[in-house]
Amino acid sequence: MTAGQPDIDPDRLWARLMRMAEIGGFPGGGVNRQALSDQDHAAWRQMLDWAAPLGLEPATDAAANLFLTLPGRDRALPPVLIGSHLDSQPTGGRFDGVFGVLASLETVEALARAGLWPRRDIAVVAWMNEEGSRFAPGMMGSEYFAGVRGIAAIRDARDAEGAICGAEIDRLHAAFPAVPLRAPFVPTAYIEPHIEQGPELEAAGVPIGVVSGIQGKVTCEVTLIGQRGHAGTAPMAGRKDAVMAFARVATALQDHMLQADPGIRFTIGRVEVHPNAPSVVAGEVVFRIDLRHPSNDVLDAAAEVIAPIVAQGALPCAGTVRVLVHAPSNDFDPDLCARLAAAAGGRDIGFRPMASAAGHDARHLAAICPSAMFFIPCKDGISHDPAESATPADVAAGAQVLLDTVLALAEQAP
Amino acid sequence: MTAGQPDIDPDRLWARLMRMAEIGGFPGGGVNRQALSDQDHAAWRQMLDWAAPLGLEPATDAAANLFLTLPGRDRALPPVLIGSHLDSQPTGGRFDGVFGVLASLETVEALARAGLWPRRDIAVVAWMNEEGSRFAPGMMGSEYFAGVRGIAAIRDARDAEGAICGAEIDRLHAAFPAVPLRAPFVPTAYIEPHIEQGPELEAAGVPIGVVSGIQGKVTCEVTLIGQRGHAGTAPMAGRKDAVMAFARVATALQDHMLQADPGIRFTIGRVEVHPNAPSVVAGEVVFRIDLRHPSNDVLDAAAEVIAPIVAQGALPCAGTVRVLVHAPSNDFDPDLCARLAAAAGGRDIGFRPMASAAGHDARHLAAICPSAMFFIPCKDGISHDPAESATPADVAAGAQVLLDTVLALAEQAP
Repeated sequence: MTAGQPDIDPDRLWARLMRMAEIGGFPGGGVNRQALSDQDHAAWRQMLDWAAPLGLEPATDAAANLFLTLPGRDRALPPVLIGSHLDSQPTGGRFDGVFGVLASLETVEALARAGLWPRRDIAVVAWMNEEGSRFAPGMMGSEYFAGVRGIAAIRDARDAEGAICGAEIDRLHAAFPAVPLRAPFVPTAYIEPHIEQGPELEAAGVPIGVVSGIQGKVTCEVTLIGQRGHAGTAPMAGRKDAVMAFARVATALQDHMLQADPGIRFTIGRVEVHPNAPSVVAGEVVFRIDLRHPSNDVLDAAAEVIAPIVAQGALPCAGTVRVLVHAPSNDFDPDLCARLAAAAGGRDIGFRPMASAAGHDARHLAAICPSAMFFIPCKDGISHDPAESATPADVAAGAQVLLDTVLALAEQAP
Repeated sequence: MTAGQPDIDPDRLWARLMRMAEIGGFPGGGVNRQALSDQDHAAWRQMLDWAAPLGLEPATDAAANLFLTLPGRDRALPPVLIGSHLDSQPTGGRFDGVFGVLASLETVEALARAGLWPRRDIAVVAWMNEEGSRFAPGMMGSEYFAGVRGIAAIRDARDAEGAICGAEIDRLHAAFPAVPLRAPFVPTAYIEPHIEQGPELEAAGVPIGVVSGIQGKVTCEVTLIGQRGHAGTAPMAGRKDAVMAFARVATALQDHMLQADPGIRFTIGRVEVHPNAPSVVAGEVVFRIDLRHPSNDVLDAAAEVIAPIVAQGALPCAGTVRVLVHAPSNDFDPDLCARLAAAAGGRDIGFRPMASAAGHDARHLAAICPSAMFFIPCKDGISHDPAESATPADVAAGAQVLLDTVLALAEQAP
């Protein structure tokens, strides 16, 4: 224990991570807890049950973000905001997002149990739909909070089964009538802990990565329109086969991206074929492109060639591209980064600066207040997968760095 | 009217086709009436309602084929069997399959209303699951009837939602308790009318195509196994991306087939990506190959290269191929073909010999009894699509050719 600083409880935190992994958990360690689903409701209920005995104030907003606030001594000051997200990919793991939320809850719990009441409110947040796997695009909740996207556009989104995001938000709010609505506010600072989702920290044997910034990201939806036909009769020469057009377009795009810059990340993760019947030449394929790079120049140049490559490769089918997300790279607040590094150093916990290859809600918070992130290692760099794993020691180290940093921030004078 | 031959009623037949198109019909003229679905139940009910006033005897069998028999004067003789299938593709049209069933019903109805009672039974059949879009493979009903596939294997099939074919057969039987079970029998002949599903007859302006045989077909399921990863973090160089492996394999396979023989039909109509999330590098892709050619030698040679091309193209993913159907080409009975041609000629209806590029239940019947098929034109060769269309005149011509041919067959002495 550092003099004057409370300690987090590593066993309590780990037990809560394992408890949360049961909500939406499936055999093999995986988690399916998508935004606004019944599993998401259950995660809210669990968070509220943990928050109640600590006297945390629950609140939500129009985008169904969840806030749990430890009241400060001066309620008029802007709060410190900490957290991440509770939603997962459909075949996600036990740490992505939920580690940041539970490390944040542990921070305020350790303070409350130590009888420490900082000057400023400390709000723990769980952002709605960070993953974007159920409703596109991801990070809707932080986009709303930061004023990047209006609530009408968020409510209009539909999932693959046709469920409307707005109706699902209303369903969540109706399930928690005791959680009041709260308007968006400007925090004094935002800090988001997360697993790295890459191999760097584990390979280096370093528990804390202080994130300097997030690489930019473009996501597109591509639609290829051909002509349905009978697999046994339609002559090959006259076909407009949307699946074959997809194969050509996907190969051409990847070939281009691999040659353009070695740092580009190019992924086609979602493909829908219509009518998707074995003996029908497909008339339509819709797929998503996920494109990332730390340099905005490289990212923009790569994004610009997508439409012409699609149009050319799709022939004789028609190909169109719709940009869903265009998020430039961003840098985090240097002072907050220095504070995180100092907190790690103060506990003799190893740390290093690094960039984030993955997008996070902190991207949007950085536009409205000083923001920062730090990572802990995850096994083999695997994420968005049931094999996603982190060690109890790294989880505890992350939560302690957060607590020490937040306590100092929350005591700051205006 | 030809001397001594009854005429079919073209208006009644057309009205019934349009009525049947409402069962499973969706806006734009399309039909979704898949095997053993609620829509299939409704089609059975409609068929039984039409059959009852004619005194046709209903029956089914273990594979849920439907038989409606016009009793002959000598019940001991093997019957003439005529028909096709009532099930459709998920986005199918108004004529594929159902034309043959309703032309067959019209044949026995015209005979019954004319007071003509041929020597032999004439059984109208609707085969279960010709399309194979819900349960794989297609033509299960005729496979069972012809002894090609055992009932246990058919009952074990599952659809994409996990429904078990055997349970769905039992559900159909339970819905029609008044339809007795009948053992498979050996007909004296089988004739199947169908739309062409290709452009040949329409282009030639000929209403009847007498089918000499069906081209061979191989269907395979290919599984590509990669490694899931985060789209923003997993370095491109180390990825095992199953979607990109699919793009390579699909392109390599099509390139090979186009060069190997101009008559090959090669289709990938069904593709499933797992987990199919926008920001997850896909860990698995499962897809179907539909491969056809009139020559068994060409077909077998083409099928043999699939596995090595998949294994090579999938790298660094693993690719495996499972053959679901291997159906060689078959020839139909020359005497029956001659009878169909003579019937068309006797009515001054144009006809020509042709091969079938599509597979049909008649393929399996040909192994147990003299069998034949004839086609009528369909608009622009389009099938398995809501745009599937045929003219009332061609529909009527087909039914009349069937009636005239069947009447002679049913009067034949043993």
